[in-house]
Amino acid sequence: MAAETSAKIIDEKSIAKQIRDEITIEISRMKDTVGVVPGLAVILVGDRKDSATYVRNKKKACESVGINSYEVHLPEDSTELEVLKHISGFNDDPSVHRILVLLPLPSHMNEQNILNSVCIEKDVDGFHPLNIGCLAMRGREPLFVSCTPKGCIELLHRYGVDIKGRRAVVIGRSNIVGMLAALLLLREDATVSVVHSRTNNPEEIIRQADIIIAAVGQENMVRGSWIKPGAVVIDVGINPVEVSWVFFGFFTMFTWMRKVQKGIVSLEMYVMRRLARLLQLLLQFPGELDPMTIAMLLSNTLSSAKRMHNYK
Amino acid sequence: MAAETSAKIIDEKSIAKQIRDEITIEISRMKDTVGVVPGLAVILVGDRKDSATYVRNKKKACESVGINSYEVHLPEDSTELEVLKHISGFNDDPSVHRILVLLPLPSHMNEQNILNSVCIEKDVDGFHPLNIGCLAMRGREPLFVSCTPKGCIELLHRYGVDIKGRRAVVIGRSNIVGMLAALLLLREDATVSVVHSRTNNPEEIIRQADIIIAAVGQENMVRGSWIKPGAVVIDVGINPVEVSWVFFGFFTMFTWMRKVQKGIVSLEMYVMRRLARLLQLLLQFPGELDPMTIAMLLSNTLSSAKRMHNYK
Repeated sequence: MAAETSAKIIDEKSIAKQIRDEITIEISRMKDTVGVVPGLAVILVGDRKDSATYVRNKKKACESVGINSYEVHLPEDSTELEVLKHISGFNDDPSVHRILVLLPLPSHMNEQNILNSVCIEKDVDGFHPLNIGCLAMRGREPLFVSCTPKGCIELLHRYGVDIKGRRAVVIGRSNIVGMLAALLLLREDATVSVVHSRTNNPEEIIRQADIIIAAVGQENMVRGSWIKPGAVVIDVGINPVEVSWVFFGFFTMFTWMRKVQKGIVSLEMYVMRRLARLLQLLLQFPGELDPMTIAMLLSNTLSSAKRMHNYK
Repeated sequence: MAAETSAKIIDEKSIAKQIRDEITIEISRMKDTVGVVPGLAVILVGDRKDSATYVRNKKKACESVGINSYEVHLPEDSTELEVLKHISGFNDDPSVHRILVLLPLPSHMNEQNILNSVCIEKDVDGFHPLNIGCLAMRGREPLFVSCTPKGCIELLHRYGVDIKGRRAVVIGRSNIVGMLAALLLLREDATVSVVHSRTNNPEEIIRQADIIIAAVGQENMVRGSWIKPGAVVIDVGINPVEVSWVFFGFFTMFTWMRKVQKGIVSLEMYVMRRLARLLQLLLQFPGELDPMTIAMLLSNTLSSAKRMHNYK
């Protein structure tokens, strides 16, 4: 019998496009039925070029699906109080359904204070501990799931990847992606392992995985030879310190190989190709968002508006 | 070279005794310095024999370390409002530092409503989603950690078991033990896998574990032959539906074998012996608490009083 090997690179752009089309239809239906248009507010402090580009791109994305976009751009030397005042304004504004405070904030501000002041119903990220607690608990539902890990699961669903009972390994345990992806996979009945910087011989576990979500900063952390033929790999790992968190969502590598019965698949090639593309994106388009993360941002804003107006 | 095999059953009773002695000293010091005595309130609804025995045992345990114990025993046909009224009273009472509502509640009551009404600073269990969220997040600290999973980690610490970087497998993902134990192990830098009822071939992962925390109802779920020589096993699994949650904490089996260089250790023997003991406990002492869980209950009540009175 001839060895049958097949590899498929998931096209996150076309999936994201599909989701955005669905959102556009939903928003138009909502506007016609109850006269409500979802609104997303962004607060940007300082002059980081990548953040400014991000805001511009986000505005374009909102417009393209019919979401109203509100921005506040404050100078680097603003006070914490000024930021809090704007957040409070958006908290009270019924036309705003999600609030996004761009990180990092200037170092003279207390990030946790500022993030905690966003009311939980409008917290675009779902990073509130109450939300994360509900995500971790069986029988509870979080108000929102953060965009990047939600995007990972959405990709698996849309490509018909079977999650239940499969071995999933999440590499990284950050509050932003890794931990949340692990909790989401567990909710989907995967058998989940979390591998991190303190793990001895990570390759031993990674080799067993049917699904891998890599959410760490080190680019060369996972070798192609560690990946089991047939495994699904989503790489969302970018160093959050050097580039702001919004970059996190790059779905740089997603290889999906099925029905591999025998033979060796050259995964290294895919890894190299995708990393090259990622590098290109990072160098050429600071502030660019990966399409799945922005699709989830729009989707979460719509859900928020629906919930607030009790619209199904 | 002769095969060196050594096995050690952890004596949770003596560890628990040691912790209680430490608590007694602390409470006496606190009373002398700031005149505050920690108080634990228990609300019991209905006539479950095991719950009544539990309350009696808890009272004895509190007295033995110097904690004040308050009880409310309501009849089975009480209204939800009556229970809420008592909780509210304890919430406002400065001499009460923890509140424990015994589960299960009668079926005509909304358990979630009642549990949510306990103020988070006095929530004895640490089951509030905000608490669990903080437990899951790096850089955040939960107010409390639920007694049984906290007891597991305390046992590992007190026996000098190295957790960092080790492979830990948690069997079960309940809100009460499994999920919390997994989050705690991750905070301790273990490489954590969660195995549950939907896992295919759990033995494959369990065989790799250095530390196993089994928190499932099925007694015969883990076979001795699945356990790697040298592994540490803590079994806290009792079916929570049949016996109330307070039974959960039975540390029924804890085998600690170190320096196993060669040879096969008859683990089945230990498993059988410990299960027999568990069965005996269950049959003979309904309402009995495992010593580590009650030690953690006392320890959490003390921490609560310390925090409220800003006493270190």
